[in-house]
Amino acid sequence: METRKVFLVGAGPGDPELLTLKAIKVLRSADVVLHDDLVSAEVLALIPAQAQAINVGKRSGMRSTPQQEINNFLVQYGLMGLRVVRLKGGDPFIFGRGGEELEALREAGIEAEIVPGITAALGAAAGAQIPLTHRDLSSTLILVTGNSRNAEHIANWPDALPQNATLVVYMPGHQLSSLQQRLLSSGVAPETPCAIISGATIESEQVHLTVVANLFAAPRLTAARLLVVGEVVRFAEARQLREQFKDFSVGPQYSAVSSDAGENA
Amino acid sequence: METRKVFLVGAGPGDPELLTLKAIKVLRSADVVLHDDLVSAEVLALIPAQAQAINVGKRSGMRSTPQQEINNFLVQYGLMGLRVVRLKGGDPFIFGRGGEELEALREAGIEAEIVPGITAALGAAAGAQIPLTHRDLSSTLILVTGNSRNAEHIANWPDALPQNATLVVYMPGHQLSSLQQRLLSSGVAPETPCAIISGATIESEQVHLTVVANLFAAPRLTAARLLVVGEVVRFAEARQLREQFKDFSVGPQYSAVSSDAGENA
Repeated sequence: METRKVFLVGAGPGDPELLTLKAIKVLRSADVVLHDDLVSAEVLALIPAQAQAINVGKRSGMRSTPQQEINNFLVQYGLMGLRVVRLKGGDPFIFGRGGEELEALREAGIEAEIVPGITAALGAAAGAQIPLTHRDLSSTLILVTGNSRNAEHIANWPDALPQNATLVVYMPGHQLSSLQQRLLSSGVAPETPCAIISGATIESEQVHLTVVANLFAAPRLTAARLLVVGEVVRFAEARQLREQFKDFSVGPQYSAVSSDAGENA
Repeated sequence: METRKVFLVGAGPGDPELLTLKAIKVLRSADVVLHDDLVSAEVLALIPAQAQAINVGKRSGMRSTPQQEINNFLVQYGLMGLRVVRLKGGDPFIFGRGGEELEALREAGIEAEIVPGITAALGAAAGAQIPLTHRDLSSTLILVTGNSRNAEHIANWPDALPQNATLVVYMPGHQLSSLQQRLLSSGVAPETPCAIISGATIESEQVHLTVVANLFAAPRLTAARLLVVGEVVRFAEARQLREQFKDFSVGPQYSAVSSDAGENA
């Protein structure tokens, strides 16, 4: 008998060209694909016609399928001997609950294979041209989520952010003023640049550049969003400024911040 | 005249199937490819025969090409109007000096396009089946490098590591006893599991599981390496144990660590 195996596959940040060869290979051989809403329409178009595609993500106003139910689906289809692909936005092991699905499969005696994907932070950084690390500016990259089971863990970064770090908050939500307070109380300087990026790597990508002091006033971008905080964000700023005003060196959004505030962050 | 453009492309962690479609497309159309040694032979085999491939990485005992020289190459070839691909292990913007190359290109008025790649931590985690985040165990992922311009910044993680964090050290070097001391003084419990992973996603992949208390005694694995520290490493342990000894719940490598040490990490 063939070994029962379920594939946990990263679909990447949105652009179908950012799928890996392996992800495409696995997807093309699937009998059943359970996918969430973060997976773009172009990526879903790669699912073979004869395969059953099941959306287990949020649908227009409805709540998403509970994780326990998704786990049950994976186990049931897996035990039937079908070739099951769990297609997840980004990477299965970065804020994707892939670990919980892996546990459920192991408990049921089903082998799992993980196909990594480009996580949203990497896709967004490439598109906005923000190097997440830089020898002179940032030697630590911290990824956190605003979407946590425990509300107190929201944006669970270290109490004191290290100097020379880049922080990426996945799914920061719309309460950016509370994130702003948390950043300031962690010692981050108010003039530290930030980027809010939505729809990374897809047609509707939007990048809003600001500084920590002005985060509370940022526009509410739609779609899956990321917040990038750190000196490296100046790379995106430099690019945007060069495109817009060739002779500008500092953008008007920085004028409200006094230059002597928060020396230590 | 065609816009001059240089592509900074992530080659992923080693397995050629973990290249993205976009990376392959860009690579196949290249006139010149500057690659480093972290790029595997299978990936290099994708470079078209008519393209010039230049190894700018370390070669048998020789020092690697200085970054300034690589930047100069990129600019010179870019100004010649050639289609230049800078092919980098992992992702160009995670400990890859992609930011410095981007700066050099911008200064020379050459457009850059970034193609993200699967960074080593994601490839290694998928292979060893270690979910880097987990709703119950880890809500923060911290990536640092042991390979820093400033020796004092080696493993520049926060002084106090947050609880429920996973730490990945890229290129931890062979001085694991100093990393061990740093971890313990950051409040990490001595019994915290760790994985040392070399050759992630390629044939020669090796995973050594241990705990922080025993890091000093870890074998010297060859090839590019990563150190993963955190409770999530127990997923790899559970898998390895099930494969080796079906009835074991705790492996012998944990016996030297007293269970009451370091409650607070």
